[in-house]
Amino acid sequence: MKPTIEPVAWNNGSLRLLDQTRLPQEEAYLDVDDYRDVATAIRKLRVRGAPLIGIAAAYGLVLAARAANAGSVDELLPLLRTAAEELAATRPTAVNLRWALEQVLAAAQGAATPQEAQERLLAAAQRLHREDAAASERIGRYGAGLLTPGSAVLTHCNTGSLAAGGIGTALGVIRTAWADGKLSRVYVTETRPLLQGSRLTMWELARDGIPATLIADGAAGLLMRRGQITAVIVGADRIAANGDVANKVGTYPLAVLARENGVRFYVAAPTSTIDLSTVSGEDIPIEERPAGEVTAFAGRSVAPDGVEVANPAFDVTPHRCVTAIVTENGVAAEPYLDSLARASRAGVAARG
Amino acid sequence: MKPTIEPVAWNNGSLRLLDQTRLPQEEAYLDVDDYRDVATAIRKLRVRGAPLIGIAAAYGLVLAARAANAGSVDELLPLLRTAAEELAATRPTAVNLRWALEQVLAAAQGAATPQEAQERLLAAAQRLHREDAAASERIGRYGAGLLTPGSAVLTHCNTGSLAAGGIGTALGVIRTAWADGKLSRVYVTETRPLLQGSRLTMWELARDGIPATLIADGAAGLLMRRGQITAVIVGADRIAANGDVANKVGTYPLAVLARENGVRFYVAAPTSTIDLSTVSGEDIPIEERPAGEVTAFAGRSVAPDGVEVANPAFDVTPHRCVTAIVTENGVAAEPYLDSLARASRAGVAARG
Repeated sequence: MKPTIEPVAWNNGSLRLLDQTRLPQEEAYLDVDDYRDVATAIRKLRVRGAPLIGIAAAYGLVLAARAANAGSVDELLPLLRTAAEELAATRPTAVNLRWALEQVLAAAQGAATPQEAQERLLAAAQRLHREDAAASERIGRYGAGLLTPGSAVLTHCNTGSLAAGGIGTALGVIRTAWADGKLSRVYVTETRPLLQGSRLTMWELARDGIPATLIADGAAGLLMRRGQITAVIVGADRIAANGDVANKVGTYPLAVLARENGVRFYVAAPTSTIDLSTVSGEDIPIEERPAGEVTAFAGRSVAPDGVEVANPAFDVTPHRCVTAIVTENGVAAEPYLDSLARASRAGVAARG
Repeated sequence: MKPTIEPVAWNNGSLRLLDQTRLPQEEAYLDVDDYRDVATAIRKLRVRGAPLIGIAAAYGLVLAARAANAGSVDELLPLLRTAAEELAATRPTAVNLRWALEQVLAAAQGAATPQEAQERLLAAAQRLHREDAAASERIGRYGAGLLTPGSAVLTHCNTGSLAAGGIGTALGVIRTAWADGKLSRVYVTETRPLLQGSRLTMWELARDGIPATLIADGAAGLLMRRGQITAVIVGADRIAANGDVANKVGTYPLAVLARENGVRFYVAAPTSTIDLSTVSGEDIPIEERPAGEVTAFAGRSVAPDGVEVANPAFDVTPHRCVTAIVTENGVAAEPYLDSLARASRAGVAARG
């Protein structure tokens, strides 16, 4: 399946980024050749989605190496590590970011010259990008296999081509199920505060001609109670060893509502999202974002001046609410401690 | 306790309405002397909140009687019934609207002249307004009695002076608990799509100096899981005989999350909200509102053009998720079939 959009593209020595904060009104691209601009783009959510920020950060390291003008590899490596730290610090929750940076940094280690290091970094970033796209394809295939014909699926936030290297994770499953003729309709939560559902997912689904209905986040419960939803499918920013899932805030309510209403709840994510060193969801850091994301929209204030705000960007869904986790190495289910470790090892083995 | 704001006021032969759609930026009032403008104000949510739209509609009938210029009571009554039907049709879910119209219409029945009918209508509307304010006071008192010192309470939508005749229902409980020194903090869900939480509740709480934190609707689950919430308190638009509660969309998810996390879930409403003729929540009509409320935000489009939207304004919380229902006649709990009937009868008895 061909992705309909390229939100991150290596383009003749610089990185082209689709500015997702301007969608759906404008399809505007930024050409970036300073890794600090990549960090800013990630922090400001111009580039977002757990797998995609990993890919963008990987290319960011390539830009850092090119700009370093280092005389030797020994001189280059500390500069790269600094850049990697800066890129990793942009967002604390998604583990794909650190994972991708480590993958690409490792590739530079054995280089004899700075030039060779640059080439190895670019090759590693491009390989990671390609592999993520391939992982999305396989996730889509495994996930669609879980759905029965006529399914109405609810999804949250954006997990499509705008969030990953290829067709997307949860949205990859939705695309594949649609191509297989298994889907009747997609329900999309708008996903406050930043409206990734209405701005991005509805945009992707409209481009693909997949029938979709937009709802306020709070309306998901009523729809489930009315029996309008067959399954919920979401992505993930970090999956702990025990199967607890950190994902966009609002995911945990959907999981609890799904269980209450006998609706299956699936998580779709590449194994790079699984963090076996995080024992449970309680150990996952939850990013707190600026108050203005909740109190203002498009420059217009919607709350009295100076009010206090809590704006956690993610929440944690306990594994007992998760029917299954779909990875590129197959479908993991309880007991997750075993099934996730197996899926992760298969990924490491496949990458050699 | 003195309410801090008068959203509906009878003012020398016309009705003064605070235009709530312009809050918190502007405190703008409309002077209305045509009942059809009252209907429009209710439909467009310039006046909202289940008890308050009943009060506004009651005054609307007074305006209808004054404008009718009827030669006899026999000529006047059918005109009033037509006006009442028109006012009742503005919003289908809140039962207070029909209830208030019936109360006021009944007062006109025995009048000898159109002039006397007008006077009786006005007296009935003013009595209803006063009684609703008194009911809020008592709800506040009963509700505060359920809270323990140091409570952190989460509320949804707006149930304050902007939604009722006095200090409000759920917000009346919060105000009373604050005055009693029992409250540490209020968490307020913004309440998409129309942001009654951020625009109206945060505005009321800021005026009263009650510490409040605004959150996106989807963040309530994380806060409950972290143990930050002692109790959830919401209002209601209609309560069925079995205790099922129709309230602003997003209430049902909060109730399910509360039960999942061992958090108490209270509903605060006057007995005029209880509809003993509605057997269960499945029989409550759920208003579907315009798509534009979801696809646009602060006047700016946030979704691709022409997308499909489902925008139910309310949802239904099953009685098994409701810890207690606080009315002006005391606290009702399971079995609701008995306790709600008792509370309702006490109300009828008190009104004579």
